[in-house]
Amino acid sequence: MSDILNQLHQVLEARKGADPDSSYVASLYHKGLNKILEKVGEEAVETLLAARDLEAGGEAQALISETADLWFHSMVMLAHLGLHPDQVLAELERRFGLSGHEEKASRGD
Amino acid sequence: MSDILNQLHQVLEARKGADPDSSYVASLYHKGLNKILEKVGEEAVETLLAARDLEAGGEAQALISETADLWFHSMVMLAHLGLHPDQVLAELERRFGLSGHEEKASRGD
Amino acid sequence: MSDILNQLHQVLEARKGADPDSSYVASLYHKGLNKILEKVGEEAVETLLAARDLEAGGEAQALISETADLWFHSMVMLAHLGLHPDQVLAELERRFGLSGHEEKASRGD
Amino acid sequence: MSDILNQLHQVLEARKGADPDSSYVASLYHKGLNKILEKVGEEAVETLLAARDLEAGGEAQALISETADLWFHSMVMLAHLGLHPDQVLAELERRFGLSGHEEKASRGD
Repeated sequence: MSDILNQLHQVLEARKGADPDSSYVASLYHKGLNKILEKVGEEAVETLLAARDLEAGGEAQALISETADLWFHSMVMLAHLGLHPDQVLAELERRFGLSGHEEKASRGD
Repeated sequence: MSDILNQLHQVLEARKGADPDSSYVASLYHKGLNKILEKVGEEAVETLLAARDLEAGGEAQALISETADLWFHSMVMLAHLGLHPDQVLAELERRFGLSGHEEKASRGD
Repeated sequence: MSDILNQLHQVLEARKGADPDSSYVASLYHKGLNKILEKVGEEAVETLLAARDLEAGGEAQALISETADLWFHSMVMLAHLGLHPDQVLAELERRFGLSGHEEKASRGD
Repeated sequence: MSDILNQLHQVLEARKGADPDSSYVASLYHKGLNKILEKVGEEAVETLLAARDLEAGGEAQALISETADLWFHSMVMLAHLGLHPDQVLAELERRFGLSGHEEKASRGD
């Protein structure tokens, strides 16, 4: 499961400069930052509501799906602004003192 | 960088049942789902504003930090509700047809 | 300008029980609370972005329009849950010690 | 109840230029637009959660209070950007064809 974000980022990068009609991501890039941010905001709201639904007896898959939408659109935002999800992961690693050092050393980062 | 979300999830799981005064995460669990969701919503808003700041010439690190806050609090939400970030990553993999295993194998991870 | 919220509330009440296809408000009631709350959240996000646009030299009318959307959908939420905007205004009056009593007395409300 | 928004706007205008330590509103103006927008976003999220709480058997007053917070902070935003709540009310009147003057006349307000 570990490299999904990296692979997804490569997909997002590959769609830059494509015809806006060729894919959903290409259409988001074309519409610009505000449209991408609206989607991040919408998916955050839908995530909150799905979490309340789950707590009230609803389905876990709905929350998983909304959280995937939220992470996905925040990755579109990062790509649109020239950033990489590894920068976010490195920030989390730094904050929580996660044992990423061996792994980074082995990859020569 | 690859296993950060998994390692972070283990940290979040380990803090379940701890004294609310012992850590920020333990205090969030204790306050309950609404407080966790408020934080997800707040961090989503701060992410949007940091993205606009970056587009207007601000610092990339501020957006990276806010996105890390957003992902972190959505992981606290998942842990609080008994879910795992791998379920979100699997949903992203499924949607985008990411060839997880082959690609990882080819890179030797 | 003073009674617009009250008049709008009467319009919202009048659309309760109507055919979902007969109006936008009737369709929102029919779809239920989550759909109404998604709209409140979306309009809040669009308001934030329009405020940033205005600060960056954009048009005031865009922010006025988004704020109207936000207030409108929060009034649909109130009506759907059996509440009246005067209850919100009374709360604001109470908090800020606004001299509403004399005014109301003079109008004979 | 009718002039509360107008009176509140006058309070908000009066606090412009005041010592940031003199009032909550003065401190918000001093912190600037992003801080005001963060508050609008936070109160929108708390409104959504309070609406779900009410639907699940919670108290109406909590939702009224959160909606008041949301409207209040959106009015601080308007004032900070040189706008007046009557501009938002006029937009609502225009959209819904609320016959402000005639209707008020017929009700004797």
